[in-house]
Amino acid sequence: MQTVTNQIKQSMAGSSWIRKMFEKGIELKKRYGADAVCDFSLGNPDVPPPAKTKEILEGLAAKAIEPLGLGYCPNAGIPAVREAIAAYLSKQQQADVKAANVVMTVGAAGALVAFFRAVIEPGDEVLCPAPYFVEYGSYCGHFGGVLKAVDSKPEEGFRPDFDAMEKAIGPKTRAILVNSPNNPTGCIYAAEDMARLASIVDRVNAAREAEGGRPLFLLSDEPYRAFAYDGATVPAVLPLTPYAVVLGSFSKTLSLAGERIGYVVVSPAMPDGDTLINAVTLTNRTLGYVNAPVLGQRLAAALLDQTVDLEIYDRRRKLMAKVLSEAGVEFTMPKGAFYFFPKVPGGDDIAFVDALQEEKVLAVPGRGFGMAGYIRLSCSVDEAIIARSAEGFKRAVARFQ
Amino acid sequence: MQTVTNQIKQSMAGSSWIRKMFEKGIELKKRYGADAVCDFSLGNPDVPPPAKTKEILEGLAAKAIEPLGLGYCPNAGIPAVREAIAAYLSKQQQADVKAANVVMTVGAAGALVAFFRAVIEPGDEVLCPAPYFVEYGSYCGHFGGVLKAVDSKPEEGFRPDFDAMEKAIGPKTRAILVNSPNNPTGCIYAAEDMARLASIVDRVNAAREAEGGRPLFLLSDEPYRAFAYDGATVPAVLPLTPYAVVLGSFSKTLSLAGERIGYVVVSPAMPDGDTLINAVTLTNRTLGYVNAPVLGQRLAAALLDQTVDLEIYDRRRKLMAKVLSEAGVEFTMPKGAFYFFPKVPGGDDIAFVDALQEEKVLAVPGRGFGMAGYIRLSCSVDEAIIARSAEGFKRAVARFQ
Repeated sequence: MQTVTNQIKQSMAGSSWIRKMFEKGIELKKRYGADAVCDFSLGNPDVPPPAKTKEILEGLAAKAIEPLGLGYCPNAGIPAVREAIAAYLSKQQQADVKAANVVMTVGAAGALVAFFRAVIEPGDEVLCPAPYFVEYGSYCGHFGGVLKAVDSKPEEGFRPDFDAMEKAIGPKTRAILVNSPNNPTGCIYAAEDMARLASIVDRVNAAREAEGGRPLFLLSDEPYRAFAYDGATVPAVLPLTPYAVVLGSFSKTLSLAGERIGYVVVSPAMPDGDTLINAVTLTNRTLGYVNAPVLGQRLAAALLDQTVDLEIYDRRRKLMAKVLSEAGVEFTMPKGAFYFFPKVPGGDDIAFVDALQEEKVLAVPGRGFGMAGYIRLSCSVDEAIIARSAEGFKRAVARFQ
Repeated sequence: MQTVTNQIKQSMAGSSWIRKMFEKGIELKKRYGADAVCDFSLGNPDVPPPAKTKEILEGLAAKAIEPLGLGYCPNAGIPAVREAIAAYLSKQQQADVKAANVVMTVGAAGALVAFFRAVIEPGDEVLCPAPYFVEYGSYCGHFGGVLKAVDSKPEEGFRPDFDAMEKAIGPKTRAILVNSPNNPTGCIYAAEDMARLASIVDRVNAAREAEGGRPLFLLSDEPYRAFAYDGATVPAVLPLTPYAVVLGSFSKTLSLAGERIGYVVVSPAMPDGDTLINAVTLTNRTLGYVNAPVLGQRLAAALLDQTVDLEIYDRRRKLMAKVLSEAGVEFTMPKGAFYFFPKVPGGDDIAFVDALQEEKVLAVPGRGFGMAGYIRLSCSVDEAIIARSAEGFKRAVARFQ
């Protein structure tokens, strides 16, 4: 008898490309030894957390054994943590964010799922520039939402195609979802581009308000906000439209991805925004998260002035750029995050990923992110591994010449 | 414009009775001072975590600042933690549980939601004896599941009504969900009663197998397993039927509810059980939990030989029984968990809860758990508060005489 639903069975069969590469990696490492494999397939931040993490956790250990030291907190988060995050976001987002505008969540992923549960009616669409983080489809799909991807412009540094985005908006479009700095491309959307998206949202909402419709949200998924290089800045999003919602996490910034600390912040200017915050607080509870893990909440709040050593990521970025250039691989230099999304020689991403595999170099095909003809390389690995991959890249490229 | 869905708007309007009492509690405590209010409305375990928690967390602090110290772990849990939990469950459940049968989750709530996502088709029913933990309806409802409650027998210590349960099973019934030791009644289902439920499940599955249907699961939600008094034991569930699934957590046992550590364990004897485990691993990821918080996973695994001081809960239980008896309130002595579910004088639970409120005693009406005419009292409060409530109970009862 079949234990699981047909939909989940299908999801399992079509398991993500990242997953497939992860399994391939295990197999190759077993066969050739971990040191022989250059694994660029995973985004698990490997730079150590800030040194202060140790001291903070030791302090939390003493408090943990008090009554309720590790007990439930309010569903929206520990009040003092919400306050601290609100102050942090006020500065970052150039908006007057109050604790009441913030819900602490189980990572940015948990933030997206709780948000979608609150706003998605079956058949609603979430519009997203491609390439995109492939889990977005599942996040809204749990509740009958449909992800609609619109190709961005690789030749313009993966800038969104505004005309195509605007054309793709229909009456069921519930949100435009952007991820900047971007996974998988590493691009950062310029302030003027974010403003252009916001103006599309405002135009749509003016029409919807006139006809008594539901609002279109501008969702900005920002787990990589701190990862900006060469003096690049990530523009604030909350001031751009009253229907802006920002989702973030400390997974990458503080290398605590496994502890699952994220947040949703709703624009203080959103009409009926309180209802939305209350709804996300409710869905955060009823989806079984209940509250973001309390140790992680306290840890993140105590480390808001810290990040991991971003220089390490920048050095890796420069080294990967050198490796790819010398191998003759075409790419846009990423300004943010820790990924490269190069164009593959020959045009077939799966063929190139296979060729790389024979060189014991693991990459994820671009079609896993909704854009074939490219690969994603994650630089959450040691510089030595990047350096070691140089010859493999050259030999793999040579096969397509 | 309406920011949230109609369904969520309704859920918010009908917010749970526990929530309402929580808010009432804040109001009363503000007005009369926290010491003046006897709040029995919440189940936040207030007995301090085991003393060893401090030492373990300090050890984890040192490891946290290593690379990947707080990084993502496999979606099913940290391998060593799954191994440890499997050994612990093998003993507890009298079954040969392997790590591969276990998925670590964000609390037992996260376990239920991830499980339902994996197995519930829209319209599927989850059968449950009433009274029941009210969030169950939301947990399956996110995916179109419907909770169907069947009154248990208060006069037999809230034993399930087996005939009524069996009659309620239809082609869309996907699971029988029991919670033992029970929230809100404090009852523990006897071994023979669990076996009887299992035999119903087996009978249904034999018929379904013959007609190529989907299996019926026996779900046992056991966050209170360690809370058994007067020498009572909670029977093992996994050996009872191959379609048994146990969901548990360390929220109460180790007083770490806020850190969100639970698990799903699928009977090693379940046909196609691997698929189910893989599906729950997938939904655990795609629902945005990604993995159970790593600090909490390591903490729980290091404390498997510990519990909070259960004597404290037992003393409270005895004191609450004395208070209720002396006030002339009719109740079944709970054998487990930390709740009382007494019958209200006069028969109207809301009227009695209101009368208690005037005495600054907070309780939750039984209708909040699907059984009117009763109230739930949580003993996760200090003995002094229970003692202090005695006169209030007497005066409230007097109004109905």
